[in-house]
Amino acid sequence: MSQTIHINVIENILGANDQIAIKNASLLKANGVMTFNIMASPGAGKTSFILKIIEKLSDKYRIGVIEGDTSAATIDADKISKLGLPAVQINTGGDCHLDANMLRSGLDNLDLKSLDLVLVENVGNLVCPAAFKLGTYKNILVASIPEGDDKPYKYPAMYSAVDALIINKIDLLPYVPFNMDYFISGVKMLNPDLVSFPISCKTGEGMDEWVKWVTSVHVDFRSS
Amino acid sequence: MSQTIHINVIENILGANDQIAIKNASLLKANGVMTFNIMASPGAGKTSFILKIIEKLSDKYRIGVIEGDTSAATIDADKISKLGLPAVQINTGGDCHLDANMLRSGLDNLDLKSLDLVLVENVGNLVCPAAFKLGTYKNILVASIPEGDDKPYKYPAMYSAVDALIINKIDLLPYVPFNMDYFISGVKMLNPDLVSFPISCKTGEGMDEWVKWVTSVHVDFRSS
Repeated sequence: MSQTIHINVIENILGANDQIAIKNASLLKANGVMTFNIMASPGAGKTSFILKIIEKLSDKYRIGVIEGDTSAATIDADKISKLGLPAVQINTGGDCHLDANMLRSGLDNLDLKSLDLVLVENVGNLVCPAAFKLGTYKNILVASIPEGDDKPYKYPAMYSAVDALIINKIDLLPYVPFNMDYFISGVKMLNPDLVSFPISCKTGEGMDEWVKWVTSVHVDFRSS
Repeated sequence: MSQTIHINVIENILGANDQIAIKNASLLKANGVMTFNIMASPGAGKTSFILKIIEKLSDKYRIGVIEGDTSAATIDADKISKLGLPAVQINTGGDCHLDANMLRSGLDNLDLKSLDLVLVENVGNLVCPAAFKLGTYKNILVASIPEGDDKPYKYPAMYSAVDALIINKIDLLPYVPFNMDYFISGVKMLNPDLVSFPISCKTGEGMDEWVKWVTSVHVDFRSS
């Protein structure tokens, strides 16, 4: 009985979440701000990837960052602020994902008129964030080599929910067992058209292809 | 208003969960079965660690394994079954953690009388599993070097909730930035008495110290 009540309440919350996500998308479109929801396991390299995007694209786009964290530690937001870019931290208070309402709070703390691109770093988690739409333009998953090649098979909901896949830490390929064909087969089974970018935030390898993709996606966004 | 209802329901579920966890602990104690709840990020090496424990301790203890997965893929359970050990897979149906009732279902599918040690592999997630007691004797966290040294600061609830910390993949220390002092400072701030074991499942380094700990904990369990 209590389980039935629980399911109903969750459905109501998801419904409310999706409504707020639609409003977020409208607000962002009206302000000409393209947004990426960047999801990953803890430690896959979301923040390093964001720093690399800033390095490559801050001369082209005015970039802001929203950092989702389960705790009050401002480690990631501090790294962005040090670069002189607007950064907002959302402390989820222990919650395992960002939701559309949290993103709205983050957006309310940015001057959207002065930005072209907002990078949203979700909580490190391969399960829950996949279930909550935020209203961002694209969902991006950062996988990493040391996590292992079986992750698409084990976390199918996340791999199915994204528009682009970053395969980070390819510099570690010589040191860990990772069968790229097996990994990509799992990805393609779930999400046949998913575009993927093998990169290393450490060496910079692969970032140019990613930057090209962002640029073409931005053209689509502007004309949408 | 809907948020208030949600919180109340969650509290009720947690209360029910804890009651089942207590029953699980009694059942396990009555059968002389020590259990570890093994938690980690996706890809930190939980399954490799379990395989290493089996390699080191299957001559001393009769071991069974319960594998928690968000999907129906039986990759990990198959690895255990191949060794001829009893393995049960719990498919959470997309849920981000095991709960006490799921563990109970797993235990119902093992012949507890014929086992000394059951290793429970939780869903790969550094947030949600920390909130759900299962009734296992000890909670173990597997961290890994490539995840980075800031994880205690970012996922404090998990680091606070465990009885032992495995620091896996120390063979990768030469290839990734990882400040062990900074990492350990974060751990000690949250959980001052937490015992930790730097290991490599790849090379076997550090496993002997871990095995000594398991043996001493088993003595405590038997006399408890």
